[in-house]
Amino acid sequence: MSSSRLDPWVDAYAQRTAEMQASEIRALFAVASRPEVVSLAGGMPFVQALSMDMMAETVSRLLLERGAVALQYGSGQGDVVLREQILEVMADVQVSAHPDDIVVTTGSQMALDLVTRVFCDPGDVVLVEAPSYVGALGVFRAYECDVIHVAMDEQGLNPAALEEAIAALAAQGRSAKMLYTIPSFHNPAGVTQSQPRRAEILQLAQRAGILVLEDDPYGLLGFDGEAPAAIRAHDEEGVIYLGSFSKTIASGLRVGWAVAPHGVREKLVLAAESAVLCPSNYSQLTISEYLATQPWREQIKTYRELYRERRDALLESLEQLMPQGTTWTTPAGGFYSWVTLPEGLDAKAMLPRAVAALVAYVPGTGFYVDGSGHEHMRLSYCYPEPDRIREGVRRLAGVIEGELEIAHTFGTSSTLRTSSGTNVPGPDLQ
Amino acid sequence: MSSSRLDPWVDAYAQRTAEMQASEIRALFAVASRPEVVSLAGGMPFVQALSMDMMAETVSRLLLERGAVALQYGSGQGDVVLREQILEVMADVQVSAHPDDIVVTTGSQMALDLVTRVFCDPGDVVLVEAPSYVGALGVFRAYECDVIHVAMDEQGLNPAALEEAIAALAAQGRSAKMLYTIPSFHNPAGVTQSQPRRAEILQLAQRAGILVLEDDPYGLLGFDGEAPAAIRAHDEEGVIYLGSFSKTIASGLRVGWAVAPHGVREKLVLAAESAVLCPSNYSQLTISEYLATQPWREQIKTYRELYRERRDALLESLEQLMPQGTTWTTPAGGFYSWVTLPEGLDAKAMLPRAVAALVAYVPGTGFYVDGSGHEHMRLSYCYPEPDRIREGVRRLAGVIEGELEIAHTFGTSSTLRTSSGTNVPGPDLQ
Repeated sequence: MSSSRLDPWVDAYAQRTAEMQASEIRALFAVASRPEVVSLAGGMPFVQALSMDMMAETVSRLLLERGAVALQYGSGQGDVVLREQILEVMADVQVSAHPDDIVVTTGSQMALDLVTRVFCDPGDVVLVEAPSYVGALGVFRAYECDVIHVAMDEQGLNPAALEEAIAALAAQGRSAKMLYTIPSFHNPAGVTQSQPRRAEILQLAQRAGILVLEDDPYGLLGFDGEAPAAIRAHDEEGVIYLGSFSKTIASGLRVGWAVAPHGVREKLVLAAESAVLCPSNYSQLTISEYLATQPWREQIKTYRELYRERRDALLESLEQLMPQGTTWTTPAGGFYSWVTLPEGLDAKAMLPRAVAALVAYVPGTGFYVDGSGHEHMRLSYCYPEPDRIREGVRRLAGVIEGELEIAHTFGTSSTLRTSSGTNVPGPDLQ
Repeated sequence: MSSSRLDPWVDAYAQRTAEMQASEIRALFAVASRPEVVSLAGGMPFVQALSMDMMAETVSRLLLERGAVALQYGSGQGDVVLREQILEVMADVQVSAHPDDIVVTTGSQMALDLVTRVFCDPGDVVLVEAPSYVGALGVFRAYECDVIHVAMDEQGLNPAALEEAIAALAAQGRSAKMLYTIPSFHNPAGVTQSQPRRAEILQLAQRAGILVLEDDPYGLLGFDGEAPAAIRAHDEEGVIYLGSFSKTIASGLRVGWAVAPHGVREKLVLAAESAVLCPSNYSQLTISEYLATQPWREQIKTYRELYRERRDALLESLEQLMPQGTTWTTPAGGFYSWVTLPEGLDAKAMLPRAVAALVAYVPGTGFYVDGSGHEHMRLSYCYPEPDRIREGVRRLAGVIEGELEIAHTFGTSSTLRTSSGTNVPGPDLQ
């Protein structure tokens, strides 16, 4: 990224391009990907838990039996057999639909992009949780939406805060186009909406005519009992549900999906064809063959147990090692815990010290569009082994203690607050 | 597509969504995909020419040796080894670049989408050939561009017409943002720009400050001698080059790329991360492993010879069977010939009769945004075997003769001109 080279096209870019921001701290994350660093930053699923022998066999069979289809263009909406299989997968979160209501996408990130493309003009209001998934914030920004954060608590999005946000908009003669929410095992907050709360949120959105965009990549990765019923289980017309195989099978296949009301689905297919012609048959049929021939529920159980063990390692060591004044959420599933630092500390400013101490995390600022979040960090337990997680927390606790000491001595943290931006690693370090 | 179901979100869509049009004649193409119909409509590569044993072996090896990488998230810009291999592939069209200048995308359709996203505000002018690739027209429409067609002749885009279009815009105080062109083995026109003409077009664009978007999916599929040097071979700063493995390896993998000037490339990566996080490592590494271990130039030669044989079958039977007054282009590579019907006939209106006679093509109207093209059709020879092509042309000649007879008897074609739209099959029938 040498800024010494002039860009002859600098005046030619579209207005929306100004909203696409490079991360100021990408370079730091590149360092953080070195093996000696314990990364609690990434959201990479532990795909090593898949049997590669089994995957190789599955794909070989697919290519030998249906290679000419797997390597050919497919339908813009996605493979119809896979869409039927997706219905089976979604039955676990109590979503029922028709295969025609499903649009298969290049990861659910693309579904986010398509929904926003189809619904949002510049200036349209999108309500999001505070904090919210950085990839969604990036999309809403790229489409020049007006993103408004709504407070969360230990049960996720707060309905009273939602009601207030809707009322505040109404008082300005405005209304929101969409509510984007991750009800189960939230990224980054690590919390889950109770069922009554989901019903309440849905009702508020329905009453205000706001489309609910429900993002559910982690729904099947709960650690206790049954998977939570999706918001979409309670309403077909007012909710677009996004699902993904990235965390239940493998992220490198890039297969996600949207379930949308009939009229919306038609628009999404047209937008998808414009964006990529069609999703990869190769990836889709690999998943379809895997689902048809392998004990996939067993595999998800394996993932769940693996992530629970790592969650426990994280929570236990946070409990043992973190200095007083540090708090965190207790995730019942998914990949993340959301940490609040002792007063006066700034997670973003502290990151270079943490990386120097060979531990990495994502500063909270990346999960807000309004510059807040400095006192927070997201810790991921999905990828490192439990012992590495414990070692990472030990290092992190040392860094925080050092910061507290400086704050105590000088009356302030050593680190200055820095400006906002996309403070997250790239996809390869997620 | 039951229009009896009301869409409760009909008033909520973004303005751009109005520009996303469903094809009026998709249903007809669905019929045309039945085995008894000879389809000269689709642009599907004949992937059956790949050895599936070899592909299965290649992917097995990849998964057993590097499965944890192939199934994981990757970089938003694309795999760095694959980007180096892409440089080798592009050497054949004399494009040289640095791996950092390449952005890997989910098919080159996605590169088209990203370039337009990064450069075009609503109302921005994009110059395109007349006719032009329907997938590009769809993207430009979706971003609400003002698309202006520039005439072609048997050597492709006509520089005099381009100069005129630029001058006409200047006279209105306007200028074009981009010139979208397919210089080699054009889709749908089947023609190729000579090298002097490429230089002339580039110079006109440079002088007017217009970015050249060069789409080159067929460049390596020429039937005579060396692959034509790309426009990008002559200018690094003013050209974005789009390449694809869809036609040289397999379309179902959905891997394409853009080569862009430094400053532009950074924006494209940010846009790509927002759109899909990252391209599929699974697809990318499959291609990378294939390129590293297989005689890929031999495979492209196999494709070239296969398509030449089919081109010959098409041209010979057109020569033998078409009624007087029908003309067509003689492609020196690629997938398509562009047919002009005898005066008074309308290819779109004639399509239902052709399908009834068990032959299908794409009416010319799909390749224009301005409602013209009724007298043209695109014939593809890439997918059917030579005998099927000959049979298809025989049927088509019969349909045209029937139309001519009616026109002769009644002084007009039997078929009324119908309104414009996206008159092409979906991706699965391309």
